[in-house]
Amino acid sequence: MITIRDIRAICTAPEGIPLVVVKVETSEPELYGLGCATYTQRFLTVAHAVETYMKPLLVGKDVSRIEDIWQMAMVSPYWRNGPILNNALSGVDMALWDIKGKLAGMPLYDLLGGKVREAAAVYRHADGLTYDQLDQRIENFLEEGARYIRVQTGAYGGVHDVNSYKPEGACPGAYYDPREYQRGVVKVFEHVRSKYGFEVEFLHDVHERIEPIHAIELARELEPFKLFFYEDPLPPEQVEWFRHMRSHTTTPIAIGELFNHPLEWRSLVTERLIDFIRVHISQIGGITPARKLAIFCEQFGVRTAWHGPGDVSPVGHAASIHLDVSSWNFGIQEWNGFGPNSLEVFPGCPTLRKGYVYPNDKPGLGIDLDESLAAKFPCDTRLPQWTNARRPDGTLARP
Amino acid sequence: MITIRDIRAICTAPEGIPLVVVKVETSEPELYGLGCATYTQRFLTVAHAVETYMKPLLVGKDVSRIEDIWQMAMVSPYWRNGPILNNALSGVDMALWDIKGKLAGMPLYDLLGGKVREAAAVYRHADGLTYDQLDQRIENFLEEGARYIRVQTGAYGGVHDVNSYKPEGACPGAYYDPREYQRGVVKVFEHVRSKYGFEVEFLHDVHERIEPIHAIELARELEPFKLFFYEDPLPPEQVEWFRHMRSHTTTPIAIGELFNHPLEWRSLVTERLIDFIRVHISQIGGITPARKLAIFCEQFGVRTAWHGPGDVSPVGHAASIHLDVSSWNFGIQEWNGFGPNSLEVFPGCPTLRKGYVYPNDKPGLGIDLDESLAAKFPCDTRLPQWTNARRPDGTLARP
Amino acid sequence: MITIRDIRAICTAPEGIPLVVVKVETSEPELYGLGCATYTQRFLTVAHAVETYMKPLLVGKDVSRIEDIWQMAMVSPYWRNGPILNNALSGVDMALWDIKGKLAGMPLYDLLGGKVREAAAVYRHADGLTYDQLDQRIENFLEEGARYIRVQTGAYGGVHDVNSYKPEGACPGAYYDPREYQRGVVKVFEHVRSKYGFEVEFLHDVHERIEPIHAIELARELEPFKLFFYEDPLPPEQVEWFRHMRSHTTTPIAIGELFNHPLEWRSLVTERLIDFIRVHISQIGGITPARKLAIFCEQFGVRTAWHGPGDVSPVGHAASIHLDVSSWNFGIQEWNGFGPNSLEVFPGCPTLRKGYVYPNDKPGLGIDLDESLAAKFPCDTRLPQWTNARRPDGTLARP
Amino acid sequence: MITIRDIRAICTAPEGIPLVVVKVETSEPELYGLGCATYTQRFLTVAHAVETYMKPLLVGKDVSRIEDIWQMAMVSPYWRNGPILNNALSGVDMALWDIKGKLAGMPLYDLLGGKVREAAAVYRHADGLTYDQLDQRIENFLEEGARYIRVQTGAYGGVHDVNSYKPEGACPGAYYDPREYQRGVVKVFEHVRSKYGFEVEFLHDVHERIEPIHAIELARELEPFKLFFYEDPLPPEQVEWFRHMRSHTTTPIAIGELFNHPLEWRSLVTERLIDFIRVHISQIGGITPARKLAIFCEQFGVRTAWHGPGDVSPVGHAASIHLDVSSWNFGIQEWNGFGPNSLEVFPGCPTLRKGYVYPNDKPGLGIDLDESLAAKFPCDTRLPQWTNARRPDGTLARP
Repeated sequence: MITIRDIRAICTAPEGIPLVVVKVETSEPELYGLGCATYTQRFLTVAHAVETYMKPLLVGKDVSRIEDIWQMAMVSPYWRNGPILNNALSGVDMALWDIKGKLAGMPLYDLLGGKVREAAAVYRHADGLTYDQLDQRIENFLEEGARYIRVQTGAYGGVHDVNSYKPEGACPGAYYDPREYQRGVVKVFEHVRSKYGFEVEFLHDVHERIEPIHAIELARELEPFKLFFYEDPLPPEQVEWFRHMRSHTTTPIAIGELFNHPLEWRSLVTERLIDFIRVHISQIGGITPARKLAIFCEQFGVRTAWHGPGDVSPVGHAASIHLDVSSWNFGIQEWNGFGPNSLEVFPGCPTLRKGYVYPNDKPGLGIDLDESLAAKFPCDTRLPQWTNARRPDGTLARP
Repeated sequence: MITIRDIRAICTAPEGIPLVVVKVETSEPELYGLGCATYTQRFLTVAHAVETYMKPLLVGKDVSRIEDIWQMAMVSPYWRNGPILNNALSGVDMALWDIKGKLAGMPLYDLLGGKVREAAAVYRHADGLTYDQLDQRIENFLEEGARYIRVQTGAYGGVHDVNSYKPEGACPGAYYDPREYQRGVVKVFEHVRSKYGFEVEFLHDVHERIEPIHAIELARELEPFKLFFYEDPLPPEQVEWFRHMRSHTTTPIAIGELFNHPLEWRSLVTERLIDFIRVHISQIGGITPARKLAIFCEQFGVRTAWHGPGDVSPVGHAASIHLDVSSWNFGIQEWNGFGPNSLEVFPGCPTLRKGYVYPNDKPGLGIDLDESLAAKFPCDTRLPQWTNARRPDGTLARP
Repeated sequence: MITIRDIRAICTAPEGIPLVVVKVETSEPELYGLGCATYTQRFLTVAHAVETYMKPLLVGKDVSRIEDIWQMAMVSPYWRNGPILNNALSGVDMALWDIKGKLAGMPLYDLLGGKVREAAAVYRHADGLTYDQLDQRIENFLEEGARYIRVQTGAYGGVHDVNSYKPEGACPGAYYDPREYQRGVVKVFEHVRSKYGFEVEFLHDVHERIEPIHAIELARELEPFKLFFYEDPLPPEQVEWFRHMRSHTTTPIAIGELFNHPLEWRSLVTERLIDFIRVHISQIGGITPARKLAIFCEQFGVRTAWHGPGDVSPVGHAASIHLDVSSWNFGIQEWNGFGPNSLEVFPGCPTLRKGYVYPNDKPGLGIDLDESLAAKFPCDTRLPQWTNARRPDGTLARP
Repeated sequence: MITIRDIRAICTAPEGIPLVVVKVETSEPELYGLGCATYTQRFLTVAHAVETYMKPLLVGKDVSRIEDIWQMAMVSPYWRNGPILNNALSGVDMALWDIKGKLAGMPLYDLLGGKVREAAAVYRHADGLTYDQLDQRIENFLEEGARYIRVQTGAYGGVHDVNSYKPEGACPGAYYDPREYQRGVVKVFEHVRSKYGFEVEFLHDVHERIEPIHAIELARELEPFKLFFYEDPLPPEQVEWFRHMRSHTTTPIAIGELFNHPLEWRSLVTERLIDFIRVHISQIGGITPARKLAIFCEQFGVRTAWHGPGDVSPVGHAASIHLDVSSWNFGIQEWNGFGPNSLEVFPGCPTLRKGYVYPNDKPGLGIDLDESLAAKFPCDTRLPQWTNARRPDGTLARP
């Protein structure tokens, strides 16, 4: 029996964004696995949970029993389904799948049933404060071979100077104007469709920045522009509003990066209120639950679009791609690419070519971590400010 | 403007159970507040989150703006609704209400609208491995004046020697037999009802230890014994089963200690599928959300029964009692009482007399913490074993 | 214990509209509170109920026990939830919150959890018989800094000469033509949107003047004009029609000024059929139920827009503003402003500056009543005629 | 055209319970009508509303146009559907039907379509603190010819000494113990069924004194005793619980005396969740809405059982009986009988013979009022204490 010998959390920020990678070392010399536990906004607490609780809980356990370990680690803390503990669990879970692949001498996608496609189509992020900036990015992506492009202007919710109409004495924060933003989205899609036609697939991320009825109204306003999908229109606490959204529009809907709890997605899928599930895999606890979630969505004709921004580590991206190429109901993969530091710190990253990302064919996740190099990119511990989003009258908004 | 000057997490275990109390100190000398952040199974990680994230996020903020601070601290980490971060937030939230009460010179119950009753009726825990043990405890409670008694035999799920029918080589764990347990529950209620009649109110806690259909079946089997309530029959991931439970039985249902997320309780309340909501107040984020949850439940004729075991700190118990005496739709309070060490470490504990617990009338929560004494009761960091519950065939069970 | 010593109803009409303010005097010299009980159409009967029933019921009661007093006064008359008794109760309830704030030395918004915004954005009423009149009013409001403007032409339902097509001998009444009105609304929004663009937020109040299916049709006809909200399209007896309205249009919906009973709003909120709840706070029984209603709506993503016309007393307006700045899910505040007489009779009125209304920071509601001055503005007891609305064929309409 | 010349409210208490009767005098000498406006708990405010608002609103109106007057008077005060204004309107509405009958020279039942039965079967109230007292009353009723008997022990919710288990310092009130009450109801029905067999119809009134789930449980516990109906198990704010009640029991359900608003009854009837509608006719606004409500219920197989206790005036009872004998879907009539003073003050009362009550055949309601005699029975203005019902822990209960 090969057992878990050690579990460590490694924090590194090769591109400036704090990442958490979990390394599970085994009783077998040289045999270890890597997993992504990246919850960048609270990364130190995730690392603390890994080393303080996951390690003593799991050291000595049989590495082959991933499902049993996942179930036990999920309920061991009694309270569960939250972002800190799910990420900590994800780090171990992915590492155990990595180990299993290495033991089998197979890439993870093979353990999951084998490739159903060679590579995963991706969507890229085009953002610009001006239409010129935006166009330049779109054109760069088109030249690179991208066929799916997310279109945004400015930060989430747009960028608007609301100083002239804030109340006196309003407190500091990342102010934006949801109504200006909404009007701006319609205009930018008029622009991109008139300039690029309908053969490129465009997407948009609302990032929960508008009220539910406006999110519904905007989905309808965008119908003429045939979005590939309309992303994160509602916060996870208000998913019941999707029933109304579905009845008002045929714009395809994608949601999920903020989900941690099965109740957030279950009825959305069984009632077929969404078209794409796009959870952040480490936020739901790793490959074990993500694989189940993909299978569940397949039963209802819902496709996957795993969360894939810069605050997923390359290890996490690798896990996504293995699922992408082996899940029949894969839809699309969000893709930000890797900076040069990441490529050095994480040898074996999946590679992008002409709009598709390819896993490598090494055993397990196929990705490694150069710990000494990682240590050269320490994490900034300052708190993010963008989540302190506020509306013109000073109301704290859901980010 | 009075601002937050410091936030600290204090871990102490006066009775052996690790507790986390948050102390919020203000710009005003001598003015501070206390809050409960006790998630005993992962207490060190909660303390880490308080000091690493809550403190830098909130130092310098206006202590009067509790609602804004709550909303901001809730979405500041982007991912949310989980046990670690909710507890960290609860610690601060309760402390801010404590400070507000001190500034107003009023007990918290007065800020919340004033007393609607003098004291909160409680239920006590009678547990015995044998009926004799159980009877002795019931009789002690009856002598003490208790009128509501929870009846259990052995640990959750009961205690049964399953060694003779486990598979060979089954892994270690806290084994129990759900079917034996179910049969035993019916028997023990036959025993207590035949011995004590129907004027005592009896309760039972299933602690999610049986399958959904058995939980429904057992609720019906217990109907002749007129339980005051039937507690935690289903895990938080399976709340939709309550529709079936409600359609099959009139046994009153209480649920909630494992809840962290609004979706766990929202439809249970709006569909009136439960009779008592019994969340662990710090697990949902403190007094601010608990007050809202009580009010929400009031609209639907659902009563409160806040979680009140030994892994709630006396500060948390004080918060519960302030809500209990000021919420019109209070139902019952779980009550374990305080050991002698707790009474010294936490001057101002609520007091039990003849089946009712009384808040004191000091400003705010009315309870204090002797930090130097608290330091004399360090916390045991060993992991709890009882959550590694397993069925006779070795299956990991929901605890 | 401080107790209620006297309860009086004071009727005054500083601007010609009868207002009812309740003064609760306490056992403590100089300590009293004020509450709004204004139901202008039946003000004398409200005042009668206050002095004949509320006073003997409550004199001698502990002023701190607001929730218990509210519950008791609500069911004391056995039959309940109606406009006369709810207003009488509101007068006392608000006064008790005013007293509690004074005892705490805190503005009411601090008791309620503190400010979540500095001030409340308001919407103003622009009405004109002609487009020129209307434009002049809109422009005045824009110069004043208003960003939300309600657009009406003529009285509710519009003004149309139906004499040429009434039946012979039709009885007197406030005649209007619902179909003419409906056509006119679309035209006036074409006018204001073409003249003022889409950066001003416009609203409209249907005031229940058209049939349900026409109310639905009109909501859809108005979609191109992007109303901030569409107000009171259906009478309180017909709220079930909102299911159809919601399924047909994304125009945001506001309702509630006529509500007195929880059944009028409960399913509208739980089914998310409306976007704004806009009850007349004294009509539902005061701050105690309004606070609960705001919290209830927050659970479902529904925002508040408390009724705020000239037939709310300045005391009632102050209560609304305290709720507005302390409720996270505040949406907008209806605002008519105060005439010069009101400002003298009620020292401490909230103040409007550049589209926002600000509460003052005095303890309690922060507003007072100069009783001797109030006596100089006696109330006109003539009955209002506008509620005798009739359609061209003489049918009595819902107003 | 005969018009309304005067409207007066006459308060009288021939049997000690304050009654309000409205007298509408017409332009025709000697032609007047009487209506019941009895809301005994707030009778003075009803009388105030009649004379202050109904009179100036309606004097001069054509007495024949009852429906138009009803609609106008309903919405004239803008806010509506509450107990004070509905009773005031009922007084006028019944009086106008009385006048119409006199003008036609026909009893009211003839105007309503004529008799479908000769008389209305009634149920009587048997109440006793002891079983002996109860039996004596039951036997008296049986001797009198009654076939339907409501069985209660003590006041609503029963009578129990809770002093030994109240909290210290609990406030005064009409204490009762809902759980003791519930156990007692089952026992008293065991008693009466074993003593009187199943040929007598027994009923029971819960008067909302227990929690919703207990109301459901009790309905099931009572199934073996075959109640004719189970009355008022839930408060009007919680009618949605009837869905659960209906799914658990076949005990016939009657509800309605507290209803004032169409939303309270509408879905109960369309979903067939109840078997008997038993509103207090004056509380919904008189004969006009009661006739419509009866017709509406007929569509769904729901029968009428108008509220008929001592706080309905003989004029109101007469109105009920006219509806009873002319409504096809009449079920049963609650009947307390008239004391000797009532019979003198109100010449023409309906008469009870062998379990049936008979209307007389005089025109209109067929009942008169001797005003000078009425004046000899002035009303006690002290407030009722029984509605200040409290549970053992001091919680204010719904009465």
